Amino acid sequence: MSARTGSIIIEGVSPEIDAGRHPVKRVVGESLTVEADVFKEGHDVLAAVVRYRQLTPQSTEWQERAMKPLGNDRWQATFALPRNGRYAYTVEAWPDLFATWVSELKRKVDAGRDVHSELLEGAALLEQTAARARPVLASDAQRLEAAAAVLKQGPSVEVTAAALDAGLTALASRYPDRTLVARHERELEVFVDRERGQYGSWYEFFPRSASGDPHRHGTFADAERMLPYIRDMGFDVVYLPPIHPIGRTARKGKNNSLSAGPEEPGSPWAIGAAEGGHKAVHPRLGTLEDFQRFVQRAAEHGIDVALDIAFQCSPDHPYVKEHPEWFHHRPDGTIKTAENPPKRYEDIVNFDWLGPARESLWHELESVILFWVERGVRIFRVDNPHTKPIPFWEWLIRRVQDVFPDVVFLSEAFTRPKVMKRLAKVGFTQSYTYFTWRVFKQELEEYLTELTTPPVADSMRGNLWPNTPDILPELLQRGGPPAFRIRGALAATLSSVWGMYSGFELCEGRALKGEEYLDSEKYELKAWDWDRPGNIRDFIASLNRIRRENRAFQLYKSLAFHRADSDRVLFYSRRTPDGTNQVLVALSLDPYEAQEAVLHVPLSHLGLPQDETYQVQELLSGGSALWRGGSAHVKLTPERPVAIWRVERFLRRESGFDYYD
Amino acid sequence: MSARTGSIIIEGVSPEIDAGRHPVKRVVGESLTVEADVFKEGHDVLAAVVRYRQLTPQSTEWQERAMKPLGNDRWQATFALPRNGRYAYTVEAWPDLFATWVSELKRKVDAGRDVHSELLEGAALLEQTAARARPVLASDAQRLEAAAAVLKQGPSVEVTAAALDAGLTALASRYPDRTLVARHERELEVFVDRERGQYGSWYEFFPRSASGDPHRHGTFADAERMLPYIRDMGFDVVYLPPIHPIGRTARKGKNNSLSAGPEEPGSPWAIGAAEGGHKAVHPRLGTLEDFQRFVQRAAEHGIDVALDIAFQCSPDHPYVKEHPEWFHHRPDGTIKTAENPPKRYEDIVNFDWLGPARESLWHELESVILFWVERGVRIFRVDNPHTKPIPFWEWLIRRVQDVFPDVVFLSEAFTRPKVMKRLAKVGFTQSYTYFTWRVFKQELEEYLTELTTPPVADSMRGNLWPNTPDILPELLQRGGPPAFRIRGALAATLSSVWGMYSGFELCEGRALKGEEYLDSEKYELKAWDWDRPGNIRDFIASLNRIRRENRAFQLYKSLAFHRADSDRVLFYSRRTPDGTNQVLVALSLDPYEAQEAVLHVPLSHLGLPQDETYQVQELLSGGSALWRGGSAHVKLTPERPVAIWRVERFLRRESGFDYYD
Repeated sequence: MSARTGSIIIEGVSPEIDAGRHPVKRVVGESLTVEADVFKEGHDVLAAVVRYRQLTPQSTEWQERAMKPLGNDRWQATFALPRNGRYAYTVEAWPDLFATWVSELKRKVDAGRDVHSELLEGAALLEQTAARARPVLASDAQRLEAAAAVLKQGPSVEVTAAALDAGLTALASRYPDRTLVARHERELEVFVDRERGQYGSWYEFFPRSASGDPHRHGTFADAERMLPYIRDMGFDVVYLPPIHPIGRTARKGKNNSLSAGPEEPGSPWAIGAAEGGHKAVHPRLGTLEDFQRFVQRAAEHGIDVALDIAFQCSPDHPYVKEHPEWFHHRPDGTIKTAENPPKRYEDIVNFDWLGPARESLWHELESVILFWVERGVRIFRVDNPHTKPIPFWEWLIRRVQDVFPDVVFLSEAFTRPKVMKRLAKVGFTQSYTYFTWRVFKQELEEYLTELTTPPVADSMRGNLWPNTPDILPELLQRGGPPAFRIRGALAATLSSVWGMYSGFELCEGRALKGEEYLDSEKYELKAWDWDRPGNIRDFIASLNRIRRENRAFQLYKSLAFHRADSDRVLFYSRRTPDGTNQVLVALSLDPYEAQEAVLHVPLSHLGLPQDETYQVQELLSGGSALWRGGSAHVKLTPERPVAIWRVERFLRRESGFDYYD
Repeated sequence: MSARTGSIIIEGVSPEIDAGRHPVKRVVGESLTVEADVFKEGHDVLAAVVRYRQLTPQSTEWQERAMKPLGNDRWQATFALPRNGRYAYTVEAWPDLFATWVSELKRKVDAGRDVHSELLEGAALLEQTAARARPVLASDAQRLEAAAAVLKQGPSVEVTAAALDAGLTALASRYPDRTLVARHERELEVFVDRERGQYGSWYEFFPRSASGDPHRHGTFADAERMLPYIRDMGFDVVYLPPIHPIGRTARKGKNNSLSAGPEEPGSPWAIGAAEGGHKAVHPRLGTLEDFQRFVQRAAEHGIDVALDIAFQCSPDHPYVKEHPEWFHHRPDGTIKTAENPPKRYEDIVNFDWLGPARESLWHELESVILFWVERGVRIFRVDNPHTKPIPFWEWLIRRVQDVFPDVVFLSEAFTRPKVMKRLAKVGFTQSYTYFTWRVFKQELEEYLTELTTPPVADSMRGNLWPNTPDILPELLQRGGPPAFRIRGALAATLSSVWGMYSGFELCEGRALKGEEYLDSEKYELKAWDWDRPGNIRDFIASLNRIRRENRAFQLYKSLAFHRADSDRVLFYSRRTPDGTNQVLVALSLDPYEAQEAVLHVPLSHLGLPQDETYQVQELLSGGSALWRGGSAHVKLTPERPVAIWRVERFLRRESGFDYYD
């Protein structure tokens, strides 16, 4: 009891994930708006601030932003996040004793009461305030003392006016009695990613298939020659499946067959052979220097390179011999291969993540990340993180980002919802999602709303993929090019970050069984005809151009769904918080038939008056139109299943004209 | 990193108020259902328990209840709360290594795989389990070792069957490897009140007005004679305004006038005079022994006595002279009187709650509570708690309930919502509410839903009062006896705890101004004619009888609103969780005109099939009817504005008849 110097309550702080257990996420240039319930007994005037600092060794000074009361004891302040990295923040509050006194004095004066004693109390408060001001700014202390002297003259119209002067209250509030401060019981964190953590268009391809000849193993030099093609489609991240030496033991053959012929290349995810492991490059792709040149060339095209991190080994990985303590052993002494019965992954062995050698194992895996970071890689797409201990990822990502805050981690967590969300909370920058399987209207609206609004959106950013080397969804198998246009447009316009696996632009839709590609690149070299008839390269390029030219598409939390009178037509908007960029999207989910719908334009959401004519420009065709009022009609066809309109108000009026007056 | 022995995540624990900062509330005989998200990477079989114990010096043993998976990684368990007092609870989980092994073995056997090595692994797990079992139950250890020996025989149909035997898995799961345990990072609390903390019907009256003669100060002996009257109306708590000596300085006169005549009694809330303070009894009410006899007589009628705790003093209170350090002093040395400008309370001085002498002040006030607790009082209605520091209440209530867990505190927090809710969270058993001002349909539905469902209902219990000595609401001033019936019925049927201030049953509705009673008892002696024509004593008695006879009304969280096709008719149900008591209430909010409505009977909520005829008994009239299907019609009049039906299914069928077979 004796430790409580004040009685201010601070609760309901937001954002706060799981009582501060996890950081919230933002990107550079965004700000953080913090709210809290702040109150105490009685009627005292309170002051509250958000305190924050960047958690770097260099800059540990706390800064403050005054919170403003929103009503109902809710307070709010916003601070800018100019730098990549981790920040801490919390809330403090204290009673503003002089402002409280002023508020009571005013009511007493209004009631015609004698305030002789009150003025003496006010003078005492000002003198105490002056004492706190003196070491900071002597002139302020002098002004406060002078005001105290006036108050001591006793009641008069002039003295009362001096006491109630707003400037005096503001001056006194700058020197509060901080011994009465209350602080939120937790320090919270926000991790601020560089922009690529939130906005990006990813293109995945196999460098070994880049030679153009199915019988010649592609190289990084071949892959370099693909960069203009990728850049011309508007992508800014190329993601490469594992580039390391591939094991020979139990190597998988064409179409995942159990035995590979001598010339079959094996799965890139069976990492490690005599030539090296996670820090080596497959000799047929080239050298480490070749890889670094590829990264450099990509950068010249404005493209980041993302590497696949699959923390597992082929039985031939050097780790297996050098560090048997890192693996599970069977009672007969052999190392266990991976399996999820009845499925077996004979070409892969897993680490013993929590075993006695975990400390050296975890540090070695950290060194793998740092090895590639030091060679210019700043984006990692992490394979199956949900099969490794979640505390490992929390430890790893924090350690890496403490030194390299610009590193982005994409979680391939195609797993149960709670696990997927926890991986996001413990640090993954982005996550794969169930979008890949969400194809109809209600499920898309519900799921994307959940993904792009708090609390989920405070820690998880959904990277939307219409296909991956593991997943050729049913709609793409059935729906032909219209289905590819629909799914590409959805991914590119529903989230600020999306990606596709090469072949998507060629409308490659032949399945082996289930959702497996026929003749999958995972197990063989391929040669693609990038100019294949029926490709949708131009359409993809248009989508990425529209994303680049419209800021609303680059923000993750800018999505809202609106009413369209059809269960096959999705209608949504993306907008910047300040409304300077506002886009409407109407999209048919039907690859087979034309669909028409009345769209209910969300005028108030867009800040448009009911009775104003505004212009919309359709960004795929470039055509413009004048709209007015809350409804519009759209017809979408399998060939043109999507319309994207930028909303442009007419803002100039005669009164703004230079010579009007 | 090295401290992490496992990788199980426990999050999303419910109930949990503000990250465990505050206890949840239940009453004796209820149970606590705890849920949590429990998961880890991969596919291991997990086990989870809720651990709990009562926080008394005597019983500190932790107990456990196994949690069951609900799907989607959500787990649940329920434990009983048989005793009054505080409990701690948390969640633990661990991987069930043998069950995980069994699950994988089964899939491998189904896939026709050689499981030689697997059986050796299983045998090793069973031997480790046996070692843990040995100190607990040797026979279990022997069974586990025997099973291990069987597994070592190697693959055969019999050995596989033995390994997959469900009894063996269940036995092994009783001896888990608790070194792998994960525990929720917080220990949570539930405070279990005695039943009166949740269910009660309160009657407030001024003992000094109990003589029947406005010129003779009532005594505790007079008050005793009112007990049968109060009991016959079905009340089980009588709440007395302060019974202490009343100050003479600045004593308030009739209708709150600033000067009192020599015979005027003053406000009971101006506590303290030469005769004593918070531990004394007003001499004209009688002696402390008289009070204790009153408490005893009330108990004989099954009635608890609630005292008013107003922690403030008249200027004549002995504390003022004996402990000047407990009060605010003005610069001229005088003690500040209470005020909320322009309102002044010249007859009251406030404590300096957070001043230098707070420690002795807080302990003295604690001793006031304990003084009355030791004299048989177990319910306190706390006056204006929101004008005192909230940390004081948290400290006080916890200290008192640590020793006397049966003490109930009602918070008169007619204040801002966040303050009201925080007072509930820090320990007040019940709270006054805004019900007093909620009179129309939508506002009643919204507010009562908020009050009676989590998260609010986990810590706050609304005690509904249609009137108080300070509040004669407008509807009662305007609507005559029908308005009193409506407001009484609402209070008595919407919450498990309600109360009225005497005179309500006489339909006393004359106001001075605003919501103040004319000739308020707060400032003068009164004589009431309890048989006054037009009284609604019998109606009140019926309401309380119905509450006593129907368990659903005694539970706080049993309310649900349903559709009635009229904006003047409210339709709601109360039901026990097991459905053994289900009641429907239709209530007209219109004191002036008859109202009819179609009621949409919530068949699925009540567990009634669409095509079954069921009986309803109207509990005010006693009449019964047969209903069928989802709609009913009701006509309510100002004279009979409410109908309360108990739903009674016909459950007997020929197949249940004794001689049927």
